[in-house]
Amino acid sequence: MKIAVDAMGGDYAPDEIVKGIELARDAYPDLEFLLYGQTAKVQPLLQNTTRIELVDAPEVIAMEDEPVRAVRRKKQSSIVLAATAVREGQADAFFSAGNTGAVLAAGLLIIGRIKGIERPGLTTTLPVLQRPDQSSFVMLDVGANADTKPFNVVQYAIMGQYYAQSVMHVDNPRIGLLNNGTEADKGDMAHRAIHDALANMAEINFVGNVESRELLNGAADVVVTDGFTGNATLKAVEGTALSMLKLIKGEIMSGGLGGKIGASMLKPVFRQVRSAMDYSQYGGAVLLGLKAPVVKTHGSTKAETVKNTIGQIQELLASHSADQLGTYFAEHSDEMAALKENLKA
Amino acid sequence: MKIAVDAMGGDYAPDEIVKGIELARDAYPDLEFLLYGQTAKVQPLLQNTTRIELVDAPEVIAMEDEPVRAVRRKKQSSIVLAATAVREGQADAFFSAGNTGAVLAAGLLIIGRIKGIERPGLTTTLPVLQRPDQSSFVMLDVGANADTKPFNVVQYAIMGQYYAQSVMHVDNPRIGLLNNGTEADKGDMAHRAIHDALANMAEINFVGNVESRELLNGAADVVVTDGFTGNATLKAVEGTALSMLKLIKGEIMSGGLGGKIGASMLKPVFRQVRSAMDYSQYGGAVLLGLKAPVVKTHGSTKAETVKNTIGQIQELLASHSADQLGTYFAEHSDEMAALKENLKA
Repeated sequence: MKIAVDAMGGDYAPDEIVKGIELARDAYPDLEFLLYGQTAKVQPLLQNTTRIELVDAPEVIAMEDEPVRAVRRKKQSSIVLAATAVREGQADAFFSAGNTGAVLAAGLLIIGRIKGIERPGLTTTLPVLQRPDQSSFVMLDVGANADTKPFNVVQYAIMGQYYAQSVMHVDNPRIGLLNNGTEADKGDMAHRAIHDALANMAEINFVGNVESRELLNGAADVVVTDGFTGNATLKAVEGTALSMLKLIKGEIMSGGLGGKIGASMLKPVFRQVRSAMDYSQYGGAVLLGLKAPVVKTHGSTKAETVKNTIGQIQELLASHSADQLGTYFAEHSDEMAALKENLKA
Repeated sequence: MKIAVDAMGGDYAPDEIVKGIELARDAYPDLEFLLYGQTAKVQPLLQNTTRIELVDAPEVIAMEDEPVRAVRRKKQSSIVLAATAVREGQADAFFSAGNTGAVLAAGLLIIGRIKGIERPGLTTTLPVLQRPDQSSFVMLDVGANADTKPFNVVQYAIMGQYYAQSVMHVDNPRIGLLNNGTEADKGDMAHRAIHDALANMAEINFVGNVESRELLNGAADVVVTDGFTGNATLKAVEGTALSMLKLIKGEIMSGGLGGKIGASMLKPVFRQVRSAMDYSQYGGAVLLGLKAPVVKTHGSTKAETVKNTIGQIQELLASHSADQLGTYFAEHSDEMAALKENLKA
């Protein structure tokens, strides 16, 4: 299995990306890498080229570039060349820590959607806290699409189910619809239509509406939502968790000697808390619904997270979930067409 | 000033509501109360009827009742009678800890909208953490409407501005639009249209798009959003804050002696954190845009929060913000009509 890597994307690129890929190469003996970047910058960083082929990509898509335009114009950028390698069968998956919009655009425009899937969904894994039987859940779409139709969200449920089964190894994953109340008739017209469509699908284990208040308590294994609400919810969870940790730290620092002694004793506890909330340990966000895995990590990604994310990509590839999704949507094209028609009405 | 109170709504009603109203009566000598509830239950709880008139309301709208139907049918319920007292000028504001949907429906159907305001917006105050110059912000709509049009969100900005100025005493409040990125062109078509309309309004201090990740950091004084996204964001903030506190407590409990000693020393710190995150201290959620203040607190409200919320209602009444909003929308009816037309196109 070969992974095409954007060596130039992210706040600590190319140094930490290259370091992480070397860690991954050492950890996963079955993987090979095509590393796309500016040779003059990347070459000196590479310690050992075993199973790593450096390919020159003279252009760079910057974090602030307008995504679609950048993908169309910067044909020699690491993002475009890496995605093109996947399309042409030279690599099996695409990894980047760069400009999110450009990675999504390259995935969609260059690698392309699985036939029958109308919109890919950006899928992230978040922690479930203090439940012995569940440590995480996935949510999609968290921002690949700002304009989402009910039919897209229904398809996300199928996509999320395959992901939870094959990558997270959850049997019969519970699928929930993010809504503003748990009752079946909650939400706007679109959400009521999505709820009813999901409730009628025999092949998924739909547990109904879930509220964002219950996400970290494990309300579902897969939470589906439109990309706008999913993005706002994900960022609210992230922001609140960070603010809470900062607040507690600030209160301790201003809390006098007793607080400071308490704090030093609590250090291992805080380390545990940080680690429970650090969802980069679960790898990157996956753009589900494409012909091959496209995985994007946070811009602040360092080598260790790069390595973990490559491990996640290996799982994705080993599970053949893109092929399985392709088969599912090929076999259910009539039902999908009827469902789409029905949700338009 | 007289406040119509639903004595029967909330998990601890009527006991804690009655207790809280007596605390408020003692704290605010200018206020009088009309207390609506089942006389047989409420009468024995009242210690002292000074400035509190008990009015019999034989019916009760339960937490699980379908809101609009309940308001239409249970004409003798405390919610309907209290709202009716406001409509008929016997009281100046309506307070309840009961069925949220029913309180909103009673406000909308019985008390009615300010002329020119198309949709009222449920407005909540949330903490800003660790900023010396800002302790809180308001967000609307957090769930009065599931189907929201761009024009409604633009009106929320005006409503939120008046609220921040007159109740929170913020000069020239910064208005932000909740969106999935800070750049002007972020979001779906609706959000781009809202952004442009707000950017063109000379009378507000629009600071552009804000992300939910930055809310508790004080990205704005007033955050406007559609009711669906606002509801999901609010509940994600609440849920994450609660989960973080539980997680830290759980880690301490399983952390051995060192952790436990640390925890006992950190108790005052945790008390501070809880208090910073406890937004019930800021009072209830206000349904802005109605002819009189309608304020709803959480179902789990106890006496102290009832008292604080009555204090907030007194501020609302003293500020005459409903009258000011009425004047604003009367004087700007042509601009509003043009804006609405423009946002439809």
